[in-house]
Amino acid sequence: MTTRRQLANAVRALAMDAVEAANSGHPGMPMGMADIAEVLWNDFHHHNPANPHWFNRDRFMLSNGHGSMLQYAVLHLSGYDLPMSELKRFRQLHSKTPGHPEAHETVGVETTTGPLGQGIANGVGFALAEKVLAERFNQPGFNVVDHHTWVFCGDGCLMEGISQEAISLAGTWKLGKLTLIYDDNNISIDGEVPGWFTDDTAGRFEACGWHVIRDVDGHDAEKVKAALAAAKAETGKPTLVMCKTIIGFGSPNKEGTESCHGSALGKDEIAAARDMLDWRSPPFDIPADIYAGWDAKEAGAKLESEWNALFAEYAKAHPELAAEFKRRLAAELPTDWAEKSQAFVEKLQAEGPNVASRKASQMTLDAFGPLLPELIGGSADLAGSNLTIWKGSVSVTEASPNANYIHSGVREFGMTAIGNGLALHGGFVPYDATFLVFSDYARNAVRMSALIPAHSIHVYTHDSIGLGEDGPTHQPVEHMASLRYIPNNRVWRPCDAVESAVSWKSAIERKDGPSCLVFSRQTLKHQQRTTQQLADIARGGYVLSDPADTKFKAILIATGSEVELAMEAARALAQQNVPVRVVSMPCTETFDAQPLEYREGVLPGWCRARVAVEAGIADFWRKYVGLDGEVIGMTTFGASAPAPQLFDYFGITVAHVIDATRRVIG
Amino acid sequence: MTTRRQLANAVRALAMDAVEAANSGHPGMPMGMADIAEVLWNDFHHHNPANPHWFNRDRFMLSNGHGSMLQYAVLHLSGYDLPMSELKRFRQLHSKTPGHPEAHETVGVETTTGPLGQGIANGVGFALAEKVLAERFNQPGFNVVDHHTWVFCGDGCLMEGISQEAISLAGTWKLGKLTLIYDDNNISIDGEVPGWFTDDTAGRFEACGWHVIRDVDGHDAEKVKAALAAAKAETGKPTLVMCKTIIGFGSPNKEGTESCHGSALGKDEIAAARDMLDWRSPPFDIPADIYAGWDAKEAGAKLESEWNALFAEYAKAHPELAAEFKRRLAAELPTDWAEKSQAFVEKLQAEGPNVASRKASQMTLDAFGPLLPELIGGSADLAGSNLTIWKGSVSVTEASPNANYIHSGVREFGMTAIGNGLALHGGFVPYDATFLVFSDYARNAVRMSALIPAHSIHVYTHDSIGLGEDGPTHQPVEHMASLRYIPNNRVWRPCDAVESAVSWKSAIERKDGPSCLVFSRQTLKHQQRTTQQLADIARGGYVLSDPADTKFKAILIATGSEVELAMEAARALAQQNVPVRVVSMPCTETFDAQPLEYREGVLPGWCRARVAVEAGIADFWRKYVGLDGEVIGMTTFGASAPAPQLFDYFGITVAHVIDATRRVIG
Repeated sequence: MTTRRQLANAVRALAMDAVEAANSGHPGMPMGMADIAEVLWNDFHHHNPANPHWFNRDRFMLSNGHGSMLQYAVLHLSGYDLPMSELKRFRQLHSKTPGHPEAHETVGVETTTGPLGQGIANGVGFALAEKVLAERFNQPGFNVVDHHTWVFCGDGCLMEGISQEAISLAGTWKLGKLTLIYDDNNISIDGEVPGWFTDDTAGRFEACGWHVIRDVDGHDAEKVKAALAAAKAETGKPTLVMCKTIIGFGSPNKEGTESCHGSALGKDEIAAARDMLDWRSPPFDIPADIYAGWDAKEAGAKLESEWNALFAEYAKAHPELAAEFKRRLAAELPTDWAEKSQAFVEKLQAEGPNVASRKASQMTLDAFGPLLPELIGGSADLAGSNLTIWKGSVSVTEASPNANYIHSGVREFGMTAIGNGLALHGGFVPYDATFLVFSDYARNAVRMSALIPAHSIHVYTHDSIGLGEDGPTHQPVEHMASLRYIPNNRVWRPCDAVESAVSWKSAIERKDGPSCLVFSRQTLKHQQRTTQQLADIARGGYVLSDPADTKFKAILIATGSEVELAMEAARALAQQNVPVRVVSMPCTETFDAQPLEYREGVLPGWCRARVAVEAGIADFWRKYVGLDGEVIGMTTFGASAPAPQLFDYFGITVAHVIDATRRVIG
Repeated sequence: MTTRRQLANAVRALAMDAVEAANSGHPGMPMGMADIAEVLWNDFHHHNPANPHWFNRDRFMLSNGHGSMLQYAVLHLSGYDLPMSELKRFRQLHSKTPGHPEAHETVGVETTTGPLGQGIANGVGFALAEKVLAERFNQPGFNVVDHHTWVFCGDGCLMEGISQEAISLAGTWKLGKLTLIYDDNNISIDGEVPGWFTDDTAGRFEACGWHVIRDVDGHDAEKVKAALAAAKAETGKPTLVMCKTIIGFGSPNKEGTESCHGSALGKDEIAAARDMLDWRSPPFDIPADIYAGWDAKEAGAKLESEWNALFAEYAKAHPELAAEFKRRLAAELPTDWAEKSQAFVEKLQAEGPNVASRKASQMTLDAFGPLLPELIGGSADLAGSNLTIWKGSVSVTEASPNANYIHSGVREFGMTAIGNGLALHGGFVPYDATFLVFSDYARNAVRMSALIPAHSIHVYTHDSIGLGEDGPTHQPVEHMASLRYIPNNRVWRPCDAVESAVSWKSAIERKDGPSCLVFSRQTLKHQQRTTQQLADIARGGYVLSDPADTKFKAILIATGSEVELAMEAARALAQQNVPVRVVSMPCTETFDAQPLEYREGVLPGWCRARVAVEAGIADFWRKYVGLDGEVIGMTTFGASAPAPQLFDYFGITVAHVIDATRRVIG
């Protein structure tokens, strides 16, 4: 009879062999956690290999994503569409088995991991999604939302500060269907951890309201099984299962040391490990009985079919809920969305309020929120500044079917990575918010939202020196440009309430990646627009103003609070018989994605007399103004003073725009 | 007789009145922590107002930097050169009292704070500096290094993940002279914290090896005094003093609520608070007895004079140590530095090793390390990848006079902010290291090092898709550009071992801010240079190659691993009778800071046929190539594959450089 150890050894063999074939990768974690993975996948994990997108599956993820071969091995062995040919191409171009798990590359990979700690936060997001969806949709007798989130992590994840942010919120939210399994192997890349990691981890988690199961022998299947059962039985708190393991288990000369963490074991050591593990199959050859022991297709089909039957009954009993449930899982916007959202934009254009764009953002939430029950989010303890609370906000700490507001506390990184988890789970469009300058704290999670990609919306207020007295620690300078440079990101900096609403609309409609919505603290002036101009906002950049009866001699390009400054300069220049065009460019990436003809229409190549104006780092704008143009922007940190004085002091003024325009015209 | 409460009320009054005058700021924290500050400053804090730079002073900092008026008040009251006229100009342009404490603006402010949590990590850096310097310089009977670090923090600091990274390391390092005083007022900006902050904070700190003093009444001076005495008495562990306070203490209608956190109380409420506090002086008027109660000038002069006497004796007994001590505190490089560092650079140029620049970095550490006992640093658990350990490395966990290596664990943000503390303390030139992509995790601490400014060195290896198989989660794309856009930062990406050594030399010699040294994983080819070219590396950009006997028709600009690619393209183009110049641009900010004449000599305006090559985000280079040039770079995330395949796949190849050059020549 096939033993559990033999089943686990298949994971070990595949990890050793794939890393050896690639001559690159991390065998230590898969070999160390193989026994745990075997118990989890064969005794607990609810999933259906034939349908990786089955809604009510448990979610499984590796926060210690360098152990990707463990994930690929269990996906392959249990029956997912991940053939051996892909495992043989581990870490090769266009394989389905990249170096770290990537959700957009591989079926069954729930989230992209590797940057340590973020997988834990993603997992908290998944578990929160499950809890809030359950509160919304479950009905007596119909637990249509009922699944568990299983997260593996290592020492590195727990050293990262984001782990504290995530576990603190998970404890506060009492996420009883979240289990974190800690690969407590005493080793990190630099060696044995006591030189740099002396936390009483159990104590820390207990201090955060977690259920902790200590000292589990991670190589004893029965003990692991008992621990996971206890974890699942505790439904009032998240559980940490601390498994003592040996990194690289089975490698006679390298196990238990950092030498097996991040490189191939080598032919001789692999041979020795095969002996030690009594694993007699050649590389990439799995005996039939091992495949049989892992095969989850039949059980998975049964689970899904039972759930489908339950859901069919639910749909009969609660047809409206079921329809809404299906809509949200399909990530389809409501049927009245297009019409009503456009009506709001047009209403704003007609009414023309002069408000701070952060206020316009809140007005938009008040308008869009009631249309979008999938909208969930909040702020990192800046609700009153970010203006993220709208009329329909209900805290997720309340057991309400309408819960949709997350008080994240001062935890920007955790908040953002949790948001990525909410987006990936399905059923939600998450937003998170802080001051623009503190996007720094969340930066790699913003990047991950673009890479995964996740439909996350990042709201950043207080967008420049315009925040005033709080001073340079709080004044973004390089942030707009830095966020724009993240591939697949869209960064909006609207110039008035209308553009603010359009930025939200675009962010909600953009499903293939994140958007950053950057709003002002200070009041912005409404701009007049024709119907065509109104429509063109969504193209990221458009002509806001052209001279009445003559050809323009220069182009002013501006964003956000600097658009009204450019408009004022244009008016003054017109009076001086210098006709100029003004281009509002709320989202450079969206503009760059327009057809050449459109872009050329806005920024015609014949006009090199261009001046860009933005209260952010100047050099970014060279891509539009070239070497012949000028940029009115920042080149240093800001300062602490009332905002109007700062714009004067840093020379972001109408007078400077006029002077620069005259210079570039020559 | 003046009561302690009256002394504390002076802080409250100044905070209320300054915030009211500015109509901006945070009265809540200063009013809540005034009693604690009074006890600390009048009974414990060792300092000399007449000499804020006296070496052996205790260090005091606000991690909750929004309470800046507390710091300005105690500095003013105790006798620092911070006159009342400056307090009246709180948050005004060019005042000495900016919105958040800024070390470069205000005497007595040890570090710049405001971005929450970082002050705790800075404090850990200060305390580590004290401990390591003490081990190096103290001698029997001569504790010339002997001072305490006092850090205030609030709920926000403790929610931030960086707090966990910092306290974990402080516990591991047993920093017995560090006391963190927690303003446990149950309020953050969004309101009462139990909705988002339910940690058992005492339990968490104890789990990290801290001594915790619970439930101190922060408004009872005697209890605060007893707690601080107990904190100081515990020398084997850092101490957390948990003070229960009332935010905005003394404001009858706002105290205890978030409404007094971040805005002026208003005239009526201030009048009511004056009544409640029995504070009868008009705004900005401090009675003489209150000044007398706070005056620390005499006691400070005595402390310094006693230390000066001790140091004079020390200098007699240990003249060499004393001289070295003074050199390090003065941040003077050793007398043989210039000669020996230059000799190493010249030796590398002569020997011409072909090595990865991360390896060249380690070779440089081996050469420079023995010259620089002030060099201290390490890696976030990537020592073997970042190659940060050199022959003279001794861990700070060993009680060795030669301790200079920090195993930070996987804690990039904490590591970097701790490094800022080490730099600010004096006596050290700190370096920290991780993969370039994970500079994201540390990003705001890098920004702070530039803003403070701190003489920190950030070492980032695995600088592009050249890292290969680990894939897009680990491949930087936007990072070079994003780091360059941080004002006052210097980012070096050397093309060979010689430029690598020069980048280290520049970073060590640059005292007025940080440098980021960005190194490759893969081998880079040595480049030939004349003596003048060798000297010009330090200018950030220089002509590496010009056609032999003819004028160039195009300029290729490259950095790092792409320089050899540009050189190869130039050779191929020369054979095709297309003469081109190659510019190596290891540090754009340093190049930009050169005189116009030099820059024009390297990139003459007449030549618009320019091609930039860098395996990073392309758009950055538009500032050098304009709209007429081309950029060979990245526009998307990378992928998981062997590095050579990735350079091919993403088109960063000699062939593409040649094609682009032909196009720009037209």
